[in-house]
Amino acid sequence: MRNLNEDTITQAVLARHVDAPSPRLKEIMTSLVQHLHSFAREVKLTEAEWVQGIEFLTQVGHITDDKRQEFILLSDTLGLSTLVTAMNHRKPPSCTEATVFGPFFVEGSPDYQNGDDIANGAQGEPCFVRGTVRGTKGEAIPHAKLEVWQADADGNYDVQYKGDHGHRARGTLYTQDDGGFHFTSILAEAYPIPHDGPVGRMLTALNRHPWRPAHLHFMIQAEGYETLVTHVFRDGDQYLDSDAVFGVRSSLIAQWVRHEPGATPAGTDSATPFYTLDFDFVLNPKN
Amino acid sequence: MRNLNEDTITQAVLARHVDAPSPRLKEIMTSLVQHLHSFAREVKLTEAEWVQGIEFLTQVGHITDDKRQEFILLSDTLGLSTLVTAMNHRKPPSCTEATVFGPFFVEGSPDYQNGDDIANGAQGEPCFVRGTVRGTKGEAIPHAKLEVWQADADGNYDVQYKGDHGHRARGTLYTQDDGGFHFTSILAEAYPIPHDGPVGRMLTALNRHPWRPAHLHFMIQAEGYETLVTHVFRDGDQYLDSDAVFGVRSSLIAQWVRHEPGATPAGTDSATPFYTLDFDFVLNPKN
Repeated sequence: MRNLNEDTITQAVLARHVDAPSPRLKEIMTSLVQHLHSFAREVKLTEAEWVQGIEFLTQVGHITDDKRQEFILLSDTLGLSTLVTAMNHRKPPSCTEATVFGPFFVEGSPDYQNGDDIANGAQGEPCFVRGTVRGTKGEAIPHAKLEVWQADADGNYDVQYKGDHGHRARGTLYTQDDGGFHFTSILAEAYPIPHDGPVGRMLTALNRHPWRPAHLHFMIQAEGYETLVTHVFRDGDQYLDSDAVFGVRSSLIAQWVRHEPGATPAGTDSATPFYTLDFDFVLNPKN
Repeated sequence: MRNLNEDTITQAVLARHVDAPSPRLKEIMTSLVQHLHSFAREVKLTEAEWVQGIEFLTQVGHITDDKRQEFILLSDTLGLSTLVTAMNHRKPPSCTEATVFGPFFVEGSPDYQNGDDIANGAQGEPCFVRGTVRGTKGEAIPHAKLEVWQADADGNYDVQYKGDHGHRARGTLYTQDDGGFHFTSILAEAYPIPHDGPVGRMLTALNRHPWRPAHLHFMIQAEGYETLVTHVFRDGDQYLDSDAVFGVRSSLIAQWVRHEPGATPAGTDSATPFYTLDFDFVLNPKN
């Protein structure tokens, strides 16, 4: 344990973990230490670069608060989130695919009834969303809990605005007896991930753009089924093939259909153009 | 760039970095992304574990401030700091070895003259430190800048105390014409690294102790020589073979000699026992 050098340090650290009570933690830490060290050895990390790395992580930590999660943004932009999602959601092809969780989910969004407008003042063109939640045998899943969240026309989620303006374009609702749901919100539009922080500076240094294709987030939970965390992506978006967080799946791309002013699916009459989106979800039964 | 799975995501991320203007950044990010993904694949990281990881890093970020650097502590305890130090300080065997920087260095510590007491009120048994700074040919290095820092008898550095009590057991001094330096401070004693935060909880989960063997930190800078960041470790310490941050080098272990009350090297008369430490440094000339 003395005079450790670049050839002996890794085994010395691992030797310190032999008495870890959790075999799983030991497994994770063994792999983590090996890869962390291999990375530093492979690039021959200099002390100045190590300092830059420490400073970068410190900045990521300091910009993170109860409304902004820069570590998730970092995981998303480095493809780790998509990798973890992919590894943990192998399921029958008939099921709706999962994608990344993202940093903007909020626990306890307000309850809505089917037919309600969840925009709650968020700016954007009106959009009427309809769909069903079913199991792999086609069975309707009543009373499934849908949590929905999205950015507004300016590309911001409610939590990105300073001050407390309440939940906007975000809500919780439940499927009806036939598995159906419907609500009003606003049109999903492409937006850049928050890029005024360290992750944004990383993307700039890598000559990467921060844009995500337009999408609507869903988390769907129902008794007896695996929870589904996914998005629906808007067909035709220019960023579908270069999503900053690598989340796009072909099966999740859908049409937002534009309608001229007139009668809406909610039975109202719209003086402005509006959109409709139809998307059906299939949940994977638990074993 | 659509439908990325665990087999394709890594190359997809790397493909996004082809236009990075800095070849070095590209090299670093390529290795980082490959190892980050390999780690997640190797342990089949679950979503719950990913969440725990995000939460852990968030806690590390939030406890870090201008006085506490939990990311450096994390790097130290995972052996990364020792690895980076070892890789970047290959030098002739006659030179004093480097070791980890640690999280407690402070820029701009107060200037002292040789012979001064740098303790400035820090609690501990008096200790008289003497030595020289030379080059590899034995040449004295006058006016070398020595920055010294250490913990007190309670195992705390000045910056670990709440409130601003000024710099204690920390100072800057310069070698004399003959390369010599001498100052008074306090006895170095073993102490635990700060373990009331996420890194401490990590060590507990791994059944690792947080102790470091007693040591005195030095950073020595002189024109024409490589900067030396090192410690002197106290012979006989029970943690020399299990340093929580893997920093011990045999060549850096020295005797702190205990003396009964009486005349001190500073020409004073001590009513209590005191210690002396003699240690000579050899700097590596720049090419």
